[in-house]
Amino acid sequence: MNAPAPRPLRFAVAPSGFKESLTAREAAEAIAEGLQRVVPDADTDLIPLVDGGEGTAEALAAATGGALHHLTATGPTGVAVPTHFALLGPGARGAAGGRAAVVEMAAVAGLSLVPPDQRDPGATTTRGVGELVRAALDFGARRILVGCGDSGTSDGGAGALQALGARLLDADGRELPPGGRALARLARVDRSRLDPRLADTELLVACNPFNVLCGPQGVARVFGPQKGASPAQVEELSAALERWARILARDVCGPAVALASPTPGLPPYAAPAPAHTMSGAAPALALLPSAAGGVDLRHGPGTGASGGLGAGLAALGARLLPRFDVLLDGLDLDARLARADLVVTAEGALDRQTTRGKIPAEVARRAKAHGRPVLALAGTIGEGAREVRGAGVDAYHGILPAPVALAEALGRGREFLADAAEAALRMILIGTRLTGAPGRFAPPAPAPTPPPGPGRLVPLPGPPTAPR
Amino acid sequence: MNAPAPRPLRFAVAPSGFKESLTAREAAEAIAEGLQRVVPDADTDLIPLVDGGEGTAEALAAATGGALHHLTATGPTGVAVPTHFALLGPGARGAAGGRAAVVEMAAVAGLSLVPPDQRDPGATTTRGVGELVRAALDFGARRILVGCGDSGTSDGGAGALQALGARLLDADGRELPPGGRALARLARVDRSRLDPRLADTELLVACNPFNVLCGPQGVARVFGPQKGASPAQVEELSAALERWARILARDVCGPAVALASPTPGLPPYAAPAPAHTMSGAAPALALLPSAAGGVDLRHGPGTGASGGLGAGLAALGARLLPRFDVLLDGLDLDARLARADLVVTAEGALDRQTTRGKIPAEVARRAKAHGRPVLALAGTIGEGAREVRGAGVDAYHGILPAPVALAEALGRGREFLADAAEAALRMILIGTRLTGAPGRFAPPAPAPTPPPGPGRLVPLPGPPTAPR
Repeated sequence: MNAPAPRPLRFAVAPSGFKESLTAREAAEAIAEGLQRVVPDADTDLIPLVDGGEGTAEALAAATGGALHHLTATGPTGVAVPTHFALLGPGARGAAGGRAAVVEMAAVAGLSLVPPDQRDPGATTTRGVGELVRAALDFGARRILVGCGDSGTSDGGAGALQALGARLLDADGRELPPGGRALARLARVDRSRLDPRLADTELLVACNPFNVLCGPQGVARVFGPQKGASPAQVEELSAALERWARILARDVCGPAVALASPTPGLPPYAAPAPAHTMSGAAPALALLPSAAGGVDLRHGPGTGASGGLGAGLAALGARLLPRFDVLLDGLDLDARLARADLVVTAEGALDRQTTRGKIPAEVARRAKAHGRPVLALAGTIGEGAREVRGAGVDAYHGILPAPVALAEALGRGREFLADAAEAALRMILIGTRLTGAPGRFAPPAPAPTPPPGPGRLVPLPGPPTAPR
Repeated sequence: MNAPAPRPLRFAVAPSGFKESLTAREAAEAIAEGLQRVVPDADTDLIPLVDGGEGTAEALAAATGGALHHLTATGPTGVAVPTHFALLGPGARGAAGGRAAVVEMAAVAGLSLVPPDQRDPGATTTRGVGELVRAALDFGARRILVGCGDSGTSDGGAGALQALGARLLDADGRELPPGGRALARLARVDRSRLDPRLADTELLVACNPFNVLCGPQGVARVFGPQKGASPAQVEELSAALERWARILARDVCGPAVALASPTPGLPPYAAPAPAHTMSGAAPALALLPSAAGGVDLRHGPGTGASGGLGAGLAALGARLLPRFDVLLDGLDLDARLARADLVVTAEGALDRQTTRGKIPAEVARRAKAHGRPVLALAGTIGEGAREVRGAGVDAYHGILPAPVALAEALGRGREFLADAAEAALRMILIGTRLTGAPGRFAPPAPAPTPPPGPGRLVPLPGPPTAPR
């Protein structure tokens, strides 16, 4: 039997973007540049990935021949910001024939839009998300995918619902101010003035199923601190979101809003997707009825996406979809990973969150299903990064060459990532010179004859040697 | 023919210390810890290395069964500092039967003893080095090795000569104040009161032969900036050291100090070593006569060691020795590198200086003579690090996991280094799963059957893919 003919080494480069530094495409190109410095004739497949957060609208517009529409909307702190949504190309149409749009929440309510000195997750609002949905409706969109991720808000989607016509009232019938903290005073929601176009619109939410609204793993407790909340603010916000979930279920959910549900008896956002719609690509997350007989907006998978935006939109009838099923399956990702000799993924930070639904963990899981080795590169190797090994990452590597401030790290991301990819591949290639399985090695090939050493007569003693 | 029996993987761990963070021993232990997390049954040979700088006296005392003597001496800024020198064990004796001592210049005039706000290389002094040499003489030492490296001074060894009895006089016959800058006013050196014990003492200097006193690659220009000099100060200091070299050659060098030279006609510090002395371990650096007929203290190899201390001691008759020949050859280093499957070296910084005589370059050069793969780890990957590949380093890798300030990087050095060694080895082991030579690979083994994917009916388009 003849040995297979040699062929070039194959890399699959499947990174996320690096927040505030590199888009996914830029990250993929930087990695490829580094790899090609070492193996110039490699077959390198670039698969930049988005997860619903920053860059999602632009990437999906580009992939479908659609376009970005630019406008101004309310930012997370209440100040107007320039933003955009995507109208997808003609191939991606809604069930009712209307166009499909992508609203990326990060583009109007993302953490990068909140100045560091204003990072109070009890005050920031998703109002702009609702404004973008209305703008998409104005353009005729009748299928709207809301991408979650990289949010700077924790208002449970309250602002988005207000922008779409819901009135959030206190005990005196006065409208609440923006922000999750105000929900502690919520008495009822008036849904009578909701935008009527929602009735024939398919709302989809691409979300991380690991994110839930309430409880010990709820958004306030898991993400509040990194969005700028003190421990006291975290507990206050947590209580306010509990109240929001309860009143949403009572006043907003129910048969009257079961617009997207073709199956009587099932809560609308748990409806099986009709096979002829785009949304059939992935099963909706199972949002189970709560013990109280209502809908469990508190602990259902994805209800905590983007500071609870998932729960708010679910109450309107949106279907919460596992983001990787909706965002990755159009890429033929599994087949592309399967043909690679080495899979390289990357993200701004590798930490405990990585295994809770981030891109490197998803890439590793899929690559491992095909037995492929996986390398992960990251700007920050944080607490809990070790857990990614369980997810299928064989080795990970920080990209920083020296003690640098965060601002410099972000500004020089491309250079650092390319250099780190080069360094990593050079390390991997050292391994091709070690024969046998890890831990047990056949003796190496005989070394070349060493050059003659300097004369050693009565050498000065050297530093101590350790016991082997 | 039978294949050789498998055996455990062999590592040689041969790092430098990490300045202001880890001793060489601590660095070696940290690296071994990281490697053993991945391959617990590896055969790991710890070879911590010193280069004449920080830690040299302690390491040599420990290796010979000698002792450190603690005392107070003049520090680089003129303030007294606690310091030490080593009296080596009884096996290491001078030619005249006196004991051997090691004076580590970094322990009394090192950069870490100069507070950052006082880093003016025109003002700092090596007076303490001369005081330690006198203290060693007081203890009966008649062979004294001065270890250079990690210096905070650029006085050409002027302070050391003053402490040993030389008088540095200006045109009015007044003694100069400390520091290299004052040498601009030097008129002559009075050597009549030099410590008479120097006449029967063998002075050896372990130095980096790449360091020269004067010219474009002279110490003021190469090291002045990192010791705190402004560009104007660098030029001023450079001129002062030129003057120092000229007057030293005229007033101090000469037959009257050719104490260590058994060969008439050769300058004393270029004398071939007598075979029966410890100093026979390595040939002295060739210090050639200058065009003016005197001795070339300006450009001779090692004259620039430790801010020109090499030149100052050479004028007294000391022999300048290539530091690795004197410090490494007692370790059986070549044989230990030759038996390793993988050589791991490390230093605080990898940069352009690395190939100019630093430990990782020396280790790589020796490992490559035996065809061994070399990995280098470093806290900082600086400008010119790429050049180490030419010296035989196959791959290098920064150890920082995240954007951190220098102080944190130094404080957490052990943890970061262990983690980086682990990460590097995991990358190397990925390579054991790639078959064939770099660039051309046999097709990988067939993958296991992938698990059934989710139903894909009309999937949402994903992000764009790149041309291959």
